[in-house]
Amino acid sequence: MTTTTTKVPTDLYVEVQQFYAHQMQALDGGDFETYSRTFTEDGEFRHTPGREPARGRATIVAELVEFHRRFEDDPVRRRHWFNHVDVVAEPDGSLRSRVYALVVTVRPGAKPDIAPSCVVNDVLVRQDGELLTRSRYVEHDQQS
Amino acid sequence: MTTTTTKVPTDLYVEVQQFYAHQMQALDGGDFETYSRTFTEDGEFRHTPGREPARGRATIVAELVEFHRRFEDDPVRRRHWFNHVDVVAEPDGSLRSRVYALVVTVRPGAKPDIAPSCVVNDVLVRQDGELLTRSRYVEHDQQS
Amino acid sequence: MTTTTTKVPTDLYVEVQQFYAHQMQALDGGDFETYSRTFTEDGEFRHTPGREPARGRATIVAELVEFHRRFEDDPVRRRHWFNHVDVVAEPDGSLRSRVYALVVTVRPGAKPDIAPSCVVNDVLVRQDGELLTRSRYVEHDQQS
Repeated sequence: MTTTTTKVPTDLYVEVQQFYAHQMQALDGGDFETYSRTFTEDGEFRHTPGREPARGRATIVAELVEFHRRFEDDPVRRRHWFNHVDVVAEPDGSLRSRVYALVVTVRPGAKPDIAPSCVVNDVLVRQDGELLTRSRYVEHDQQS
Repeated sequence: MTTTTTKVPTDLYVEVQQFYAHQMQALDGGDFETYSRTFTEDGEFRHTPGREPARGRATIVAELVEFHRRFEDDPVRRRHWFNHVDVVAEPDGSLRSRVYALVVTVRPGAKPDIAPSCVVNDVLVRQDGELLTRSRYVEHDQQS
Repeated sequence: MTTTTTKVPTDLYVEVQQFYAHQMQALDGGDFETYSRTFTEDGEFRHTPGREPARGRATIVAELVEFHRRFEDDPVRRRHWFNHVDVVAEPDGSLRSRVYALVVTVRPGAKPDIAPSCVVNDVLVRQDGELLTRSRYVEHDQQS
């Protein structure tokens, strides 16, 4: 029988979990500088299918600022939820991580809007002892 | 004071988390063979209250294929989300795991439908070093 | 570069995860005594913004019983989902934990209602070897 479970060591899996908790709370808290520093210097972030990814920390920040400018007068709040973090170690030492995501959007007095449903495809690498996202490609379930 | 927290060792808890991430991504990805191999050979899967459980890997695959045949012309995608994995070690070495679940159903261009809410009751065992589901009984919150 | 990731040791992070799984399944299962015992004797639980927190285990139980009395004839079921558990160790040995939460409310035959979206701000301490909540302040996204 071939093994059906891919596993990484406990410490590493928990590090990835803490990395995501911190990274996504930074994003949702509007701390785009901190979010961008969870990527490598040349990190890629493709949030929208069919669009070119943002490349590099400065560009990632700029795209997030640009996106959120549209909501300047809109007291919207977003929470990116993650689930089923599936991590595979690659021979080159990087990690492939495939994670379910749901975006919870909240406006005062209204019920949360829960959409879209996505799959986040990350390559994570370690630099100076720290885990960083080298690339993040977000697939949207609504489009596949 | 009696302890209020049941705990299993760190390595084991994280192994269960990785097991579920892998198992459920296989199911949602339509890889029913891989999903069935996360059960023991004689594993039981009762997905629908009041119905007999599917018994054995071949039957589990057959029921999943049968279920999904109904959606052959329907570009539907499902994501099974899990939360609050509560694991208790039994004296016989098996694990009882009780987990919240929500099914996210997505169709192109539409918002995700998030239903039903369930509780997954698993018995997990180790065979040849690997964690496997010996039985899975799904309770539906809407019916209780 | 300053570190962007706050981390606690693996064992501790997994202990917090198991603590939450157990604590919230107790709450949702209506076992308010067990839930209250996951707080310190003088623990604070502020579930509603603008209201005084419940202080002490007996008060926490009393408020939960009072709240649920309203639903005596209502076969409602609630599931509190948590996500992105972000834990920081304080110099005094306590833990600050900031967690996303969604309340899933289910009634027979109906679709789950998923609201509100919250952020749970906990201070966790260890007493007699056991992790306990010293204070829990729940922020509601809809009001901020």
